[in-house]
Amino acid sequence: MKNTFGQNVAVTIFGESHGEEIGVVIDGLAPGITIDHEFIASQLTLRRPAGKISTSRQEKDEYRIVSGVFEGKTTGTPICIIIPNQNTKSKDYSATRALARPGHADYTAYCKYHGFEDYRGGGHFSGRITTGLVAAGAIAINALKKKDIHIGTHIRELGGIKDREFDNINGDIEALNKKTFAVLDEDAGEKMYKKIEETAAKGDSIGGMLECAVTGVPAGVGEPWFDTVEGLLAHALFSIPAVKGVEFGKASDLKDAYGSEYNDSFCIKDGKIETVTNNNGGINGGITNGMPIIFRCRIKPTPSIYKEQDTVDFFKNEEAVLKIKGRHDPAIIHRARVVVDSVAALVICDLLSGRYGTDFLA
Amino acid sequence: MKNTFGQNVAVTIFGESHGEEIGVVIDGLAPGITIDHEFIASQLTLRRPAGKISTSRQEKDEYRIVSGVFEGKTTGTPICIIIPNQNTKSKDYSATRALARPGHADYTAYCKYHGFEDYRGGGHFSGRITTGLVAAGAIAINALKKKDIHIGTHIRELGGIKDREFDNINGDIEALNKKTFAVLDEDAGEKMYKKIEETAAKGDSIGGMLECAVTGVPAGVGEPWFDTVEGLLAHALFSIPAVKGVEFGKASDLKDAYGSEYNDSFCIKDGKIETVTNNNGGINGGITNGMPIIFRCRIKPTPSIYKEQDTVDFFKNEEAVLKIKGRHDPAIIHRARVVVDSVAALVICDLLSGRYGTDFLA
Amino acid sequence: MKNTFGQNVAVTIFGESHGEEIGVVIDGLAPGITIDHEFIASQLTLRRPAGKISTSRQEKDEYRIVSGVFEGKTTGTPICIIIPNQNTKSKDYSATRALARPGHADYTAYCKYHGFEDYRGGGHFSGRITTGLVAAGAIAINALKKKDIHIGTHIRELGGIKDREFDNINGDIEALNKKTFAVLDEDAGEKMYKKIEETAAKGDSIGGMLECAVTGVPAGVGEPWFDTVEGLLAHALFSIPAVKGVEFGKASDLKDAYGSEYNDSFCIKDGKIETVTNNNGGINGGITNGMPIIFRCRIKPTPSIYKEQDTVDFFKNEEAVLKIKGRHDPAIIHRARVVVDSVAALVICDLLSGRYGTDFLA
Amino acid sequence: MKNTFGQNVAVTIFGESHGEEIGVVIDGLAPGITIDHEFIASQLTLRRPAGKISTSRQEKDEYRIVSGVFEGKTTGTPICIIIPNQNTKSKDYSATRALARPGHADYTAYCKYHGFEDYRGGGHFSGRITTGLVAAGAIAINALKKKDIHIGTHIRELGGIKDREFDNINGDIEALNKKTFAVLDEDAGEKMYKKIEETAAKGDSIGGMLECAVTGVPAGVGEPWFDTVEGLLAHALFSIPAVKGVEFGKASDLKDAYGSEYNDSFCIKDGKIETVTNNNGGINGGITNGMPIIFRCRIKPTPSIYKEQDTVDFFKNEEAVLKIKGRHDPAIIHRARVVVDSVAALVICDLLSGRYGTDFLA
Repeated sequence: MKNTFGQNVAVTIFGESHGEEIGVVIDGLAPGITIDHEFIASQLTLRRPAGKISTSRQEKDEYRIVSGVFEGKTTGTPICIIIPNQNTKSKDYSATRALARPGHADYTAYCKYHGFEDYRGGGHFSGRITTGLVAAGAIAINALKKKDIHIGTHIRELGGIKDREFDNINGDIEALNKKTFAVLDEDAGEKMYKKIEETAAKGDSIGGMLECAVTGVPAGVGEPWFDTVEGLLAHALFSIPAVKGVEFGKASDLKDAYGSEYNDSFCIKDGKIETVTNNNGGINGGITNGMPIIFRCRIKPTPSIYKEQDTVDFFKNEEAVLKIKGRHDPAIIHRARVVVDSVAALVICDLLSGRYGTDFLA
Repeated sequence: MKNTFGQNVAVTIFGESHGEEIGVVIDGLAPGITIDHEFIASQLTLRRPAGKISTSRQEKDEYRIVSGVFEGKTTGTPICIIIPNQNTKSKDYSATRALARPGHADYTAYCKYHGFEDYRGGGHFSGRITTGLVAAGAIAINALKKKDIHIGTHIRELGGIKDREFDNINGDIEALNKKTFAVLDEDAGEKMYKKIEETAAKGDSIGGMLECAVTGVPAGVGEPWFDTVEGLLAHALFSIPAVKGVEFGKASDLKDAYGSEYNDSFCIKDGKIETVTNNNGGINGGITNGMPIIFRCRIKPTPSIYKEQDTVDFFKNEEAVLKIKGRHDPAIIHRARVVVDSVAALVICDLLSGRYGTDFLA
Repeated sequence: MKNTFGQNVAVTIFGESHGEEIGVVIDGLAPGITIDHEFIASQLTLRRPAGKISTSRQEKDEYRIVSGVFEGKTTGTPICIIIPNQNTKSKDYSATRALARPGHADYTAYCKYHGFEDYRGGGHFSGRITTGLVAAGAIAINALKKKDIHIGTHIRELGGIKDREFDNINGDIEALNKKTFAVLDEDAGEKMYKKIEETAAKGDSIGGMLECAVTGVPAGVGEPWFDTVEGLLAHALFSIPAVKGVEFGKASDLKDAYGSEYNDSFCIKDGKIETVTNNNGGINGGITNGMPIIFRCRIKPTPSIYKEQDTVDFFKNEEAVLKIKGRHDPAIIHRARVVVDSVAALVICDLLSGRYGTDFLA
Repeated sequence: MKNTFGQNVAVTIFGESHGEEIGVVIDGLAPGITIDHEFIASQLTLRRPAGKISTSRQEKDEYRIVSGVFEGKTTGTPICIIIPNQNTKSKDYSATRALARPGHADYTAYCKYHGFEDYRGGGHFSGRITTGLVAAGAIAINALKKKDIHIGTHIRELGGIKDREFDNINGDIEALNKKTFAVLDEDAGEKMYKKIEETAAKGDSIGGMLECAVTGVPAGVGEPWFDTVEGLLAHALFSIPAVKGVEFGKASDLKDAYGSEYNDSFCIKDGKIETVTNNNGGINGGITNGMPIIFRCRIKPTPSIYKEQDTVDFFKNEEAVLKIKGRHDPAIIHRARVVVDSVAALVICDLLSGRYGTDFLA
């Protein structure tokens, strides 16, 4: 299915970094969901590069919803959101066309598309394409809020600096969603920010780990085999450029733990079944247990660095040296966070619409 | 799609731990692939509990291929493999029917299936169901071997003990595939084995990390968005009970690395483009680069432990104490390894058949 | 997806005419549906050849439900039904292995599977495989009955003889489901039966048209584009061997009509919106309007006839003459009728489970 | 999957009749296919209303390819084509908002979308949406031509007037593709045209039957169950508004034929296996046999007529009388023909890309 994901709520993305327009189609969302343009705009702002620790490529991310919305509400038919590309400096890339940037998709794109790929600015592989996901995700996030389902992501770790864990999760989510640099502990955040600045100064880049929480999803959603909640989320999340690992609950924290430490005991709280701990990230046997869904994404350092790198010219099949110019982020983790929120929201909408029917989110 | 996975080569699984028969249907494999019953049997043996560190439930895993094979070769039509359940002691479970075993799917199954689920021995959630995946995977592994694509998995880490890294990968794979307890460093293996024995003695359980390598997949396979090689593998791998994290290449080893350390430089080796390191696990932008595909699965400790645990009775909605009886594994990581190989083989067959056509594996 | 159909309720079929066992997996049916073995058996009997107008190959169609049913009810997990093949006379076919039977799939199977196909008795292409669909369909039909959704099919036309139209549809459906030779007008039925006998006497075969009605499906089910109710039903129905046309409502009856004759006027009946006529077969814009869904399948004559036919030997690439022996039906339309019911039921279950959620049929 | 169709080559459509823009995304087409804008424009012209026998709504169908094409060729990534809506007279519709037009989707849309649907001009159900299919289809048709696969459709029958049958098919296809009113026999065409004019004069509408031929598809494409060539084509074709029947080969012509008349004998012609007749429309057992694929679509009369009709007001749940104003076609069959070509081309591209790999059409 390639550039389409989801069964009941499906997302299709298209576009290239330096093409005319990029966009997204969301199909299957219930009719009657209110479109909040202010929220969409604010989500796009979170994804947009900002300040010293981001690329100097700045776009206003004006978008048009060209279908599927009527009189301010979703109609239930496919919503297409178009986002024009602006400020594209295509000349930056042509000189190094056949020099595979290490860690990038230049060479694999060439192997797959035989040289017909739009190579400018990473083309269809560019993080720019996630803009559509964020716009679509904003609609999904809002629809979920109405059902008291909340999503928030923080930078759990960067360059050895750790943010604090989720504590009062709904409060934490609310706080995170007001922040540009999403950390729960401001001191840790300052250190991370500084670390990115130092990395930028060296012409290098850095990654880290994002942690996302989704609260309010009822117990009993997901499938035991293949379409597990873990599998569906991971499938979609690995599309986000730079994500190289996805784990649920405390998988890496408890890597040496015994079963007696890892198992989440059940208890009754306010008359409802809960688990005492949430090491399994809200999912047992692929199915939600009613606790917050918690997952983490390992974000590798952005591959575009200013340091000289060994590479090949894949047209000439010979070794070469690459010095990347252009505008690049020393870190994208703080921007990727809203993409993670968005992808999570879209997958959860898909799961809920499948489980409870197409009108559930209405 | 639930219990079916794959687009061009699709796998459907069915069955319950204490049902009459379990099985699998593989659809889309090319016609003309030789069925090697000895290999299927040996793979099933690897999955089967053995020795002191496994459950005492032992089954012969006799299987029948009831369709899709004619005169010893695949016909190209769906292959159904049926595996009878034997040696099922259903009485062990009925007493504790409504006591949710922590870390298990008892409670989530109840939320999803409203009490109609076959709860005996974990029912459809049981690791027993992976027997079908292993039988199907054995056919896929053999088909890939003919194309010089090789797959092997080792226990990378268990209880703080680490196996050595892959070195000469094809040699390592060959060695691993002859071993019952799959480690590259025999000393590390002995320590791990001892650790499992100690854990069993305490009535507890333990997890760890499996690492899998797939060599020989050509460059240019996979999709940039959604159906990335990472996304497809992860989607399928999270079905394996106890897998709670999937990562590619050195995602967690290099969690604090800079881009200049993480990026895999390109070089020419024997006239062909390769990368010097393989931190990205053979995948850039969701697409294979021709290097070995390397991924890791975090395996949580088996939730069935003999220690007393706090839980709830979900029929009565009240708190309870659970003491699990029956036959249980102190670790399943050494058995899960062949399931990981199998799932990886099936996903790779799917990807290759989509990329190069339905006759590619013939 | 090949041998699997459906998104929310999915059916996978496997097996060959002369293999050991054939079967079906139904995935996604709600938990808690009662299994009525008597009804399954009676449906299988309807499909089975009987009397003078059918092949002399008779099988008892013993079946085993090996998964997905517990204590007499569906569990919500995949239901696998296995049906052993008996009474297979494989020797009948080997002599004419490479002589393509006109109208059959022998040659196309050879083109697709390169000679590895199980050619005995039509292999995977055999009408025998529909036994699994009928068994699965029986469960679906029963689940729908609980929701007051009823399905019935009659032979609308055969050899120029026409059955009467549906009149009091639910009464007609009830009557049809008690009949072996499904016609509404017994006189027409007798003539059709005689026509088949005459055709058999000539060593020839005959087809006709089946008409199916589904009552009780609520308005508002289906999609405007691609996954229209028409498209989904047709997609599945064309799998039934010999179906070469599918139409809805009065498409061919009104082929020369004007819009003013074709349009179904709306009215209020007992306070509810209905249409006065039902020329559109209960579907407007791909979506149900609450009227009975009516469709017709054109069934071509069974291709196996006893007359000598010109053909080719596809191994030798030379012309040849074929005289088919073995046991063959002069008509399968009276047997196909229960397959049409079954396929319709499975598609409707899929549609309803997607629209109203996975518990809808529970 | 709703508004997306296809597995290897997938099409997603979006938009409403009176929205800002409509469009289509085609995903999975091979890289390197040349885009012929002149041909796209000429195909769009064929779909466009023209002359006395069409609606007076005229749009220039300017389109933009905003992604997936670089330097005049496909890149292999999703191609999004955007077509602005112009000349929309939304005021025509608001007065009769809740008066269900007989034969239209107004009422079913209301049942499905609960009143949130964009009702103006048929909204997402409008034939206008097929513009995207035609633009996408033009790219597919051109790609197939390079592989010597040709597609053409004629009006086989209208108001009792029959066009002649296909004879020299490739020559006929070439001729048809140069015509605005696609008939093989000009005399029949004139009579049909006159019939439409007469129908228009009465304020009524008329339908008919389209017949499409696809030549050059190799033998061995398609699946025996579910994803038969018939099933896939029918699934997609039923999306075209007004299509109420799909049949292959001579299904209705030979409705009373015997097997000995219906079966297509095989022969050797120029050293290759062919069939003498092509009653099965090039498909046996769901799989192509190398002969032209022939299918027919029954097109119902356009439901928008100027005559007064009985209907209901679905807001008030009471009977009403409707007199449709606005601009409407007395027939759309001559315009639908290019939509049929387009949908057929897209389905064939999907089938071939699945069978022979993603580079096959390159």
